[in-house]
Amino acid sequence: MRISMLAERTGLPVATLKYYLREGLVPPGIATARTQALYDEAHVARVLLVRALTESASLSLAAVRQVLAVLDDPPASRHDLLGAAQHALLTDEERSAGTPGAPAADPWLSRAAAVVAARGWYCDTDDPLVRRLAEGLRAADAADVTISDEHLDAYARASETIADADVASVPADAAGAMRQVVVGTLLTDPLILTLRRIAQQQASDTAAARPTS
Amino acid sequence: MRISMLAERTGLPVATLKYYLREGLVPPGIATARTQALYDEAHVARVLLVRALTESASLSLAAVRQVLAVLDDPPASRHDLLGAAQHALLTDEERSAGTPGAPAADPWLSRAAAVVAARGWYCDTDDPLVRRLAEGLRAADAADVTISDEHLDAYARASETIADADVASVPADAAGAMRQVVVGTLLTDPLILTLRRIAQQQASDTAAARPTS
Repeated sequence: MRISMLAERTGLPVATLKYYLREGLVPPGIATARTQALYDEAHVARVLLVRALTESASLSLAAVRQVLAVLDDPPASRHDLLGAAQHALLTDEERSAGTPGAPAADPWLSRAAAVVAARGWYCDTDDPLVRRLAEGLRAADAADVTISDEHLDAYARASETIADADVASVPADAAGAMRQVVVGTLLTDPLILTLRRIAQQQASDTAAARPTS
Repeated sequence: MRISMLAERTGLPVATLKYYLREGLVPPGIATARTQALYDEAHVARVLLVRALTESASLSLAAVRQVLAVLDDPPASRHDLLGAAQHALLTDEERSAGTPGAPAADPWLSRAAAVVAARGWYCDTDDPLVRRLAEGLRAADAADVTISDEHLDAYARASETIADADVASVPADAAGAMRQVVVGTLLTDPLILTLRRIAQQQASDTAAARPTS
């Protein structure tokens, strides 16, 4: 199909498609003339994926490029694969942070580690995700948002429910598993946050309906 | 304190503080000379809040402005308050969408409604959050991410656990409740998504350790 049809099929302007092509986010079509190329179903799927990652998951183009690189070249072993998928979900900054020398006596890192350990999860304070959790706790505190240990443990319990369902849905083949962990996680994040808001409405209506004796 | 001290206390460059002041995100200090003003602890708290909303919750300045407007002028009744808080958490687009004429026969809206109804929650397909859920489901499908009903129900169950803890933590006073619902939700979203990733690591390690007979 021509680029005009690719635009129609994906709902994106031709200018955006040309931008994706120029940036290498979508592979080139088969050239049929100096300024014309033909695209196929694989192009449609790739454009829709880039669109979902930028629009729905709000990823930067650099982050999209990182995700696509991992999807296009998945590791052979299933164990490496899950590590690579988790790695693709980190930010550039987190990836390049490396291991700090001494385990810093940061109270937020200690609290993040305690939350993780309280669930019986393996906890490494050098793990970029534990550090991200610590940064989140620090930011909430700076904005004067207090979160009790019980409140945080409820979040961790809920995350366990989510993650168990996520892991159960990972297909057996390497490429499919990679896609499910990386793309699936990014595109279901907004669903979880939306369901949280709907559940809040529900819970506050229920609380409001209770007699305040 | 002078603006240089405000910068030191909040960890932000003077240029950023001047930008916040110019944009009205932080109220002016008390002028002591034509180009000098003094700031107090309320300014420190406000700057830290704006910083957390932009950096940690990734809000646009327009969204920050909306959140601050609601915090600065909370409704008198507790019931209006929770509605206003939920309203402040919507995007501009969602707020201005209005009620569509006919209940569109959109399969994603039907599925979103079914997810909500399956939990026994009150469901209104005109609710902007139910519409946001439908858009999220549509985006995941466009990127070829399949989510089973069981998987989605696990997300809804987890959201219930999260929302119950959220609502239990809302203080009794109107201003405090408003702040907790709006700022608390925005700043704990990243914590939940981070815990999800840590729990995924944990769940996949556990799955990998199981004999594959």
